[in-house]
Amino acid sequence: MTITLAVDCMGGDHGPSVVVPAVFEFLRHDLDCSAILVGREEVLQPLLAQADAALRARCALQHASEVVDMDEPVASALRNKKDSSMRVAANLVKEGRADAAVSAGNTGALMAISRFVLKTLPGIDRPAIASTLPTMKGHTYMLDLGANVDCAPEHLLQFGIMGAMLAAALEHDERPSVGLLNIGEEDIKGNEVVKRAGELLKASGLNFLGNVEGDDIYKGTADVVVCDGFVGNVALKTSEGLARMVSTFLRQEFSRNPLTQLAGLIAMPVLKAFKSRLDPRRYNGASLLGLKGVVVKSHGSADVFAFRHALAQAAEAARQRLPEKIAARMATVAPAPTFATD
Amino acid sequence: MTITLAVDCMGGDHGPSVVVPAVFEFLRHDLDCSAILVGREEVLQPLLAQADAALRARCALQHASEVVDMDEPVASALRNKKDSSMRVAANLVKEGRADAAVSAGNTGALMAISRFVLKTLPGIDRPAIASTLPTMKGHTYMLDLGANVDCAPEHLLQFGIMGAMLAAALEHDERPSVGLLNIGEEDIKGNEVVKRAGELLKASGLNFLGNVEGDDIYKGTADVVVCDGFVGNVALKTSEGLARMVSTFLRQEFSRNPLTQLAGLIAMPVLKAFKSRLDPRRYNGASLLGLKGVVVKSHGSADVFAFRHALAQAAEAARQRLPEKIAARMATVAPAPTFATD
Repeated sequence: MTITLAVDCMGGDHGPSVVVPAVFEFLRHDLDCSAILVGREEVLQPLLAQADAALRARCALQHASEVVDMDEPVASALRNKKDSSMRVAANLVKEGRADAAVSAGNTGALMAISRFVLKTLPGIDRPAIASTLPTMKGHTYMLDLGANVDCAPEHLLQFGIMGAMLAAALEHDERPSVGLLNIGEEDIKGNEVVKRAGELLKASGLNFLGNVEGDDIYKGTADVVVCDGFVGNVALKTSEGLARMVSTFLRQEFSRNPLTQLAGLIAMPVLKAFKSRLDPRRYNGASLLGLKGVVVKSHGSADVFAFRHALAQAAEAARQRLPEKIAARMATVAPAPTFATD
Repeated sequence: MTITLAVDCMGGDHGPSVVVPAVFEFLRHDLDCSAILVGREEVLQPLLAQADAALRARCALQHASEVVDMDEPVASALRNKKDSSMRVAANLVKEGRADAAVSAGNTGALMAISRFVLKTLPGIDRPAIASTLPTMKGHTYMLDLGANVDCAPEHLLQFGIMGAMLAAALEHDERPSVGLLNIGEEDIKGNEVVKRAGELLKASGLNFLGNVEGDDIYKGTADVVVCDGFVGNVALKTSEGLARMVSTFLRQEFSRNPLTQLAGLIAMPVLKAFKSRLDPRRYNGASLLGLKGVVVKSHGSADVFAFRHALAQAAEAARQRLPEKIAARMATVAPAPTFATD
């Protein structure tokens, strides 16, 4: 089955100069895919013309006259830019002309537009943002990362189901383990919402491990870590800040004087191998889950390598029919989310 | 003025074998301090006897027949162990025989006992746990780190005031900057509690910067970062987990083969300097704020070097009369915490 990706070529910090080459690289790699390049025709046409005939045959072009700015308010993007590249890409999924949409644009606008155009799946109150993080054992899926700041226990249950289905689809693991992010392992720990969410997850039939703590994320204790969007966003950004500080300190120490610089030169291959293990580009691509269609958000500053990862993730989620799987799983808990399995 | 520290010698993973030598080292360093060693007399007496006469003259011994276990439930520690070393240390502060208490024992028990024995300051609903984190610019105070999981906006305001007074006392900075941990810089971001807390902090007369994000913690954007105990605990433990993963990966890469091992040997002094900048022992000592007395919690696994830092922090907070300063500052906002300064 050929998967067709609708790619917003205008979003992100670099726009078509990164997105179009990334699409070409991806298509060269994944022969079962095709792409619809969405954006200003006059910009995209010359870029497409540079590709060889075989690639061109697998790319269509869909004109979109507008672009959502990176800092544009969500309401403005939704109401005033009906022909934005982001929206046209979502429409292509809605109309069944594409199997997934990928954009490096404004996260809030992409979420609002995707939700407006595609709608949420039955049983899902709120879509969530899920991403992959490196761990000691491999990697972990974490959600929500910022779409939902005031969550009820039922929402955390839905995140658990969506996250488990995402991990199942992308890792080909039937029963990924799910942990609930909390501040202690015991059931009595945490705030009221999390305690109740723990009960719901326990009764959900998921492979639920119970509570996990902040350090469990990077230990790789659970395949999926569930939290509300406030906590998830803080944990993610705190990690980004710490990683940046660590890499700055490391660089500073190696550039302190000629002797440390020499040591740095000798250690360079090792430091590169170390850096590549934590390379955030390898984890680029956050899934917008709970929608009637696959939508993947790339980091705004993604380069060709990183954007290709987001495309690959979208293609795999579409190939695995992730939205259908989430809907099917939701049907087993909804409309009675407190139903116990025993 | 001589500062007397009541030191729980039985708490922590290592008990007196670490705590007593740390007290001696601290006293050798800080000549204006004396200590009361609290714990089992039969254990502490021989250790004390090993010290020279000058040191012995600055150490008293206070027998306590019980020890709170590291994993003992809080209620049991509070109700059943009235002669625990932790409780006796808090009593010494309450009775004015010591200026501060320091313990490496069970955090929950220490908080509950301190609160029960010392009581909270006027205007403070809930004590909070504050700690120091390294940043690109130096370090930052963050609170609450886990004492309060369901916070109202007024609690976050109180944390802001307590944190600012802590930073002022320990850094000798009259108007430390305070940031509110949120998931975006704009006022409209975040959940309802945080939005309202932002309004209260704005009107508090503190040097309030507004919202900060997770990555701002390590950027050092604010001198004090305020958040509820759930978010703070997750951010702290996530950081611990990431730091451990990074150091494991670094070690693994340098021990991959003889060539990388040689590179590691050559880079060793640089790696050591790097490691020391992030050494958590230099940041050991969490302040229990909002009590009528100074109480500092050391990490349970602290070594002599780390425990000494906790002692130094307690001595400085007592010397600066931190509880009195918090009470005085609270009096300017309480009993009308929503009172605007303009």
